[in-house]
Amino acid sequence: MALSTFSIPAQKPTSNLSSHFSIGPALPSHHQQKLFNQGKKRPIGICASLSESGEYHSQRPPTPLLDTVNYPIHMKNLSVKELKQLADELRSDVIFNVSKTGGHLGSSLGVVELTVALHYVFNAPQDKILWDVGHQSYPHKILTGRRYMMHTMRQTNGLAGFTKRSESEYDCFGTGHSSTTISAGLGMAVGRDLKGKQNHVVAVIGDGAMTAGQAYEAMNNAGYLDSDMIIVLNDNKQVSLPTANLDGPIPPVGALSSALSKLQSNRPLRELREVAKGVTKQIGGSVHELAAKVDEYARGMISGSGSTLFEELGLYYIGPVDGHNVDDLIAILQEVKATQTTGPVLIHLITEKGRGYPYAEKAADKYHGVAKFDPATGKQFKATASTQSYTTYFAEALIAEAEVDRNIVAIHAAMGGGTGMNLFQRCFPTRCFDVGIAEQHAVTFAAGLACEGLKPFCAIYSSFLQRAYDQAIHDVDLQKLPVRFAMDRAGLVGADGPTHCGAFDVTFMACLPNMVVMAPSDEAELFHMVATAAAIDDRPSCFRYPRGNGIGVEMPTGNKGTPLEVGKGRILIEGERVALLGYGSAVQTCLAASTLVEPLGLHLTVADARFCKPLDHALIRKLAKSHEYLITVEEGSIGGFGSHVVQFLALDGLLDGKLKWRPLVLPDRYIDHGAPADQLVDAGLSPAHIAATVLNMLGQTREALQVMS
Amino acid sequence: MALSTFSIPAQKPTSNLSSHFSIGPALPSHHQQKLFNQGKKRPIGICASLSESGEYHSQRPPTPLLDTVNYPIHMKNLSVKELKQLADELRSDVIFNVSKTGGHLGSSLGVVELTVALHYVFNAPQDKILWDVGHQSYPHKILTGRRYMMHTMRQTNGLAGFTKRSESEYDCFGTGHSSTTISAGLGMAVGRDLKGKQNHVVAVIGDGAMTAGQAYEAMNNAGYLDSDMIIVLNDNKQVSLPTANLDGPIPPVGALSSALSKLQSNRPLRELREVAKGVTKQIGGSVHELAAKVDEYARGMISGSGSTLFEELGLYYIGPVDGHNVDDLIAILQEVKATQTTGPVLIHLITEKGRGYPYAEKAADKYHGVAKFDPATGKQFKATASTQSYTTYFAEALIAEAEVDRNIVAIHAAMGGGTGMNLFQRCFPTRCFDVGIAEQHAVTFAAGLACEGLKPFCAIYSSFLQRAYDQAIHDVDLQKLPVRFAMDRAGLVGADGPTHCGAFDVTFMACLPNMVVMAPSDEAELFHMVATAAAIDDRPSCFRYPRGNGIGVEMPTGNKGTPLEVGKGRILIEGERVALLGYGSAVQTCLAASTLVEPLGLHLTVADARFCKPLDHALIRKLAKSHEYLITVEEGSIGGFGSHVVQFLALDGLLDGKLKWRPLVLPDRYIDHGAPADQLVDAGLSPAHIAATVLNMLGQTREALQVMS
Repeated sequence: MALSTFSIPAQKPTSNLSSHFSIGPALPSHHQQKLFNQGKKRPIGICASLSESGEYHSQRPPTPLLDTVNYPIHMKNLSVKELKQLADELRSDVIFNVSKTGGHLGSSLGVVELTVALHYVFNAPQDKILWDVGHQSYPHKILTGRRYMMHTMRQTNGLAGFTKRSESEYDCFGTGHSSTTISAGLGMAVGRDLKGKQNHVVAVIGDGAMTAGQAYEAMNNAGYLDSDMIIVLNDNKQVSLPTANLDGPIPPVGALSSALSKLQSNRPLRELREVAKGVTKQIGGSVHELAAKVDEYARGMISGSGSTLFEELGLYYIGPVDGHNVDDLIAILQEVKATQTTGPVLIHLITEKGRGYPYAEKAADKYHGVAKFDPATGKQFKATASTQSYTTYFAEALIAEAEVDRNIVAIHAAMGGGTGMNLFQRCFPTRCFDVGIAEQHAVTFAAGLACEGLKPFCAIYSSFLQRAYDQAIHDVDLQKLPVRFAMDRAGLVGADGPTHCGAFDVTFMACLPNMVVMAPSDEAELFHMVATAAAIDDRPSCFRYPRGNGIGVEMPTGNKGTPLEVGKGRILIEGERVALLGYGSAVQTCLAASTLVEPLGLHLTVADARFCKPLDHALIRKLAKSHEYLITVEEGSIGGFGSHVVQFLALDGLLDGKLKWRPLVLPDRYIDHGAPADQLVDAGLSPAHIAATVLNMLGQTREALQVMS
Repeated sequence: MALSTFSIPAQKPTSNLSSHFSIGPALPSHHQQKLFNQGKKRPIGICASLSESGEYHSQRPPTPLLDTVNYPIHMKNLSVKELKQLADELRSDVIFNVSKTGGHLGSSLGVVELTVALHYVFNAPQDKILWDVGHQSYPHKILTGRRYMMHTMRQTNGLAGFTKRSESEYDCFGTGHSSTTISAGLGMAVGRDLKGKQNHVVAVIGDGAMTAGQAYEAMNNAGYLDSDMIIVLNDNKQVSLPTANLDGPIPPVGALSSALSKLQSNRPLRELREVAKGVTKQIGGSVHELAAKVDEYARGMISGSGSTLFEELGLYYIGPVDGHNVDDLIAILQEVKATQTTGPVLIHLITEKGRGYPYAEKAADKYHGVAKFDPATGKQFKATASTQSYTTYFAEALIAEAEVDRNIVAIHAAMGGGTGMNLFQRCFPTRCFDVGIAEQHAVTFAAGLACEGLKPFCAIYSSFLQRAYDQAIHDVDLQKLPVRFAMDRAGLVGADGPTHCGAFDVTFMACLPNMVVMAPSDEAELFHMVATAAAIDDRPSCFRYPRGNGIGVEMPTGNKGTPLEVGKGRILIEGERVALLGYGSAVQTCLAASTLVEPLGLHLTVADARFCKPLDHALIRKLAKSHEYLITVEEGSIGGFGSHVVQFLALDGLLDGKLKWRPLVLPDRYIDHGAPADQLVDAGLSPAHIAATVLNMLGQTREALQVMS
C-alpha cells in the first residue's frame, strides 16, 4: 500500500493556490469506516480531519483544508468554522510530522489555535509575529511555506527547531533561548514608529519565560515607552513559575472567564478606560509629574481594583482567555488590532500543552520534546544505548557526593529534566532549588548559599550560563566564593543547533582569575571532577561535559568519584614527534585520530589536559620538549584552552625553539543544527581532520587527503 | 590652629569602649558661639551636632556621640533621641569625609537614618545586612570599625567605595553592580535555614536597582521559597524607573502614610493576615494546589484590594515609610524582627538622595558622585583638564554621525551621564532610549531596532555588558544584526576598582564569529571608529575605550570621524628587532615605552592594531617577518587580542621560525581600586614594565632593572 511508505504529500509550495487543492491520500479502510459513520453530522465538501475524533494512526491523516494553505494569504477567506477545521488538521499534521522526526511536540500542540488565529487576523510578514523560545513554532512553519520541509526538522540541512531569520521572512526574530521576544518586539515597535510604518507587532511568550528577568525588564520598558504592541501570554502552567513540577490537571477555563475577556476587549469599555488613562495623565500637567505617574504605575503604587502585575507595569491586560477557542481568539485579536494607540496590550491565554493528542496530554512532560513515535499508540522509538547520558552520570555523581556531605546543594534554572537535577531532587528534596528561568538569580543565589558555608552546584547549560556571566564574575569569582558550575551541553549539541551550542564557555570562564576550569574526557572522569569540585572549597570551579551518552568506560568503585589533584593532566598514549593535547570530549577524538594514523606507522602522543586552569605546566613542558609538534584540540571557540596553553608556552620560552604549536578549535562561524557526526565534520574537528592536520604538518599530504576521504 | 590641618581625630578602634569617650576636637570660635546661642534649647551633656542647624563648614564638625561608636555594639544602649543625634553626626561626618576624598555622597546621605536604625535593631555581623550597589555604604562603614580609614576612601590601598567581603566581616556581600542583593540575601536566608541558624537577613536595594530583571527573578523566587528575609526598598526617586531624569522635588510623605505604615506593621493585624494566609493555603489541601496558589499569586491572579506588584510576587509589603524618621524606622524594623515565619517582607522607604546637605539636595544629580569639595559652599574642586573625557568624545562623535544619518539611535541602561548619552538625548530626544538598569533588555531591544533598519548604538560600560552577554551572542551576533556596542570604561578604571574594571570584553566579544572588534588608541581614533561602526551595517561591531581623558591629539576635521578600512591597522614608528603591537589605549603605553628605551639606542617598532577582529593579517605578517620579537600589549585579560594574534601566527606558520612572541595582558588576578597610574604599575602594564620586558628579552637585564627603578 502506497501509504505505508509515509511519503510526504505536500509539495514545495508555489504562489499558485489552485495547484494545491489536491485531495489528501487515500485513507486506510478503518478510517474510511469511521468517516462514513460520522458522515451525517458533517458538512459535505470539506473532508473532516481525523483529529477531531481524537484518534491518531500511523498513516498521514487527511488534511484537505490544510492542503490548500501554504501561506497565510490562503487563509484569509476562510470562515471561522473552516478555521477551526484548519486548526484540527494542522494539529494532526504536526503530530504526524513530529512522529517521523522527533522534536518539540507538546508546546506546538498548545498553540495550534493561536497560530491559526494570529495568521488569520494579522498580515505577516508585514506584521511581525515573534515566537518566544521558538519550539512552539511548528504550526507557524507549516502555515508559512515550510510544510514541505517538515520531514527535515532538526536534521542536517533541514528546518531549524526554532524560528530563524535566515530560514524565512516570516521568522522575524530568531529564538532558542527564552524570554527575548518582548524586548525584540518592543524594538521593532519603536523602530516602526520611528520609520512611520503602520504594521503590528505580536510577541507570543510562555508563562515559564515570564519568570526571566529580561521579560520583566522589557515589560517595564514597554509600559514606559507606551508603544503599540501586543504581548500574548501563552499560559499553559507548564515549565511554570519556579516549580516546573505542576503536572496536575489544568483548571477549566469556564464561561465566566470567556465572558469577562470579551467584556474587557469590548471597544466602548476599552475606550472608556483609555479616556480615563488620558485624564490621569493630564492631572499631572507637566512632564515631570507624568513621568512620576508612570513611575508610580510601574511600582504598583497606583493599584486599582482588578489590577494585576502586568497592569502595574503599564500594560493593558486582557484575560484570561481560552487559548483553544478559535472564536474568542479571533474576536479579541481583531478587537485589539482595530483599537489604535493603546500602548502595549497583554492578552493572557490559558492553553494546554500537548492539547488534542491524548498521549501528550496524559504524559507528565506533555511530550515536550520527543523521539520519533507511533502516532497510534504514542509510543516513542527511543534508541537503547549501553551507556547513560552525561547528564545522568553527573546527577549520579552529585548524589554520591551529597550522600556523604550534607552541605552540598543543587541549583538549576527550570531545567530539572535537562540537567538531571530532578534525580537529585528525589534524593534530597530540601537541598535542590529550581529558581525558574532565572540564571542570573541562580548564580547569585548560589553565591549567597556559599557565603553561609554550603557547597552549591549550579547546573546550567553552557549556552544558558551566558545569561549569568556578570554574576559568575562579580558575585562569585571576584569574591572567590566556592560556587561550582556544572556546564552541561558543552560543545556542539546536534539537533538544537547554534543557539544551544556551548561554544564559548572555556573562553569566558577561563579568563576569570579565581576560577578552576576543567573538563572530563569520559564519564568516569566526570565522576572524579564532581568529586574534585566538591572538594575545592576555597574558590569557584567549573566543569563542562557534552550532550550525549558516555563512551562506556569502567565506572569508579561504588559509583563515586575521587578528587583529582587540581591542575594535573595525564598522558594516555606515549608516542613521538606529534603530541595531541586534548581538552574534554576532544580527548576521545584525539584517541580516534591516533588510531587512524597508526597504520601509517605514526605513533602519536595523546594527553588529557583535564584542567584548562590551572594548567599542568609540568605536563606541557614535557610534551613541548619531547615533540616537534604540539596540537591542542578542543570543542570550543578561540580564546579558550589552546590560548591558555600557548600563552604559557610563550612566557615559558617553549615556543622560542623548534616546537610548532597548532590550535584546533571550533571554526569562526556558527555550526548549524544537524547530526552530531555531521557537525563535527562541519567544524573540522573529526578524527579524520585531526589526523589530516598531523599528516599535513609532517609533509604527508597525500595520506592527509586519503584520511579525509 | 590645630584644626586647620583637618587631622582625623578617630583612632583605629579597639574593643575598649571607654577609650573612645573622648570629646571631639575644639571648635572654631564661630561654631562655639552658635552652640552657646542654642544652649538653652538643648539637653545638657550631649553636645549637639552642627548638622542639625543645616550649616556646614570647612572644618571637621564636632561629633561627640559618634566618637563613642566604633562598632554597632556601642549603639545598643542609646535612646531614640540619641540615635537621632547619632544620625545627624553621622551625616556631617560623611559630608566632611567625602569632601576630602571625593566619592559617592548623595546616596550615602539618603540612608543615614536607615543605617543607624538597622545597626540598632539588628546584630551584625551575625545578622546579615546587604547594601545593593554598595555606594550608599559609607555610613555603614563608619559605624562598623572603619571610620579611621574613611580618609583613604577609593584611594590606593584605602577603603573600597563599595562593600567588600575581604574588608570587613560586616560586609557580608560584595557589591558594585546593582540588583544582586535580593538574590544573595535569599541564598543566605536559605543557607541559614538549612544550617538551623536563627539570624536575620536584610537586603537594602534602591528603586533604580528594582528595574533590573535580576531583582524580579529574586523576588519571584523569594516569594516562592517563603524564607524569612527583609527587603528594604530605598525609594528615592533617583536613577529611577527608566527615566533617570526625575529631578523634581519628592512628594512629601505625610502623617497618613506614616500612620498607615505603623498600622500595617502592627502585630495583631499582621498576625491576622498571617492566619488568613494560612487559611488560604489550607483550602488547597494538596501540594499541587498550594503550588498553583503560589503560582497564581506570582502572576497577579489573586489580587486583593491594596495589592501591589510586590505582594503579587509573594512578598509581604509594608509602606511607604518615611525613611528619615528614625522613630518609625526603629518601630517597624523591631516589629518585623519580632514577628517570626512571615516569609519575605518588603519595607518600602521613601528617602531623599543627598538628604540633609542643602547643596546636594538642590543639585540635579544630588551629588551622586563628587570630587573633593568645600563643605561650606558645596563647591567641588574639579581638576581642569585640557582635554575632555573619552565618554564626551564618544557622545560628540555619535552626535556628528546622527546628524547626517537619521537611522542612528542610542540605547543606554540608566547611564545617561556615565555614557554621555544625555548629550545625545539633548540633540535627538526621540532617538535616545534609557531602558533602566536593564542591560539584557537593552541589547535585545537594540536587536529589534536593527531588524527594522535602524542603526542602534548600545552604550554600555565594559563590565556592565557582562550582564547582556547572552543577548549579545544569541540575539545579535548569531543573527548577524548590526548592533553597535560602545564599551566605555574598558580596562582599568581607577577608584571604582575591580567590580567596574573592563577586563574581559575583548575576550568575550572577539570569540563571537560575526563581531567586528576594535579599539581606538586615542580620541581622534575614537571618532573614526564611531564612524566605522555607523558604516558597518551588515554585522555587529563593538569598540572599547578607557575611563579618563583624551591625550590631546588633533581632532578630525569638523569633529566628525571618517570610516576606517575594516581590519586595517597602522604602524606608528618603524623600528627594528622588537615590534610592539598595541591594542586600544595600550598603544600609548607602547609609545611611552619606546621613548624610554630610545636613549639606550633601541629603536622599537610600534604599531596600532586598531582591530582585534578581523585582524590585519598583512600588518602582522610584516611585523613577524621583519622582527625578532613581537610583543602584543593590551589592557585586557588572557584570551583576547594577544590570543587572536598568536592563533593567526601559528596557523600561518609564522611562529615556526625565529620569531618570538610575548603577550602582555592584565595579570591573572583582580586589580584593587586606586590611582590609575598605581593600577597600571600593579598590573605590570606601565611603560616601564613594557620597556623592561623588551630589555630582558634582549638580554639587557641591568638596563631592565634600571628602567623599573
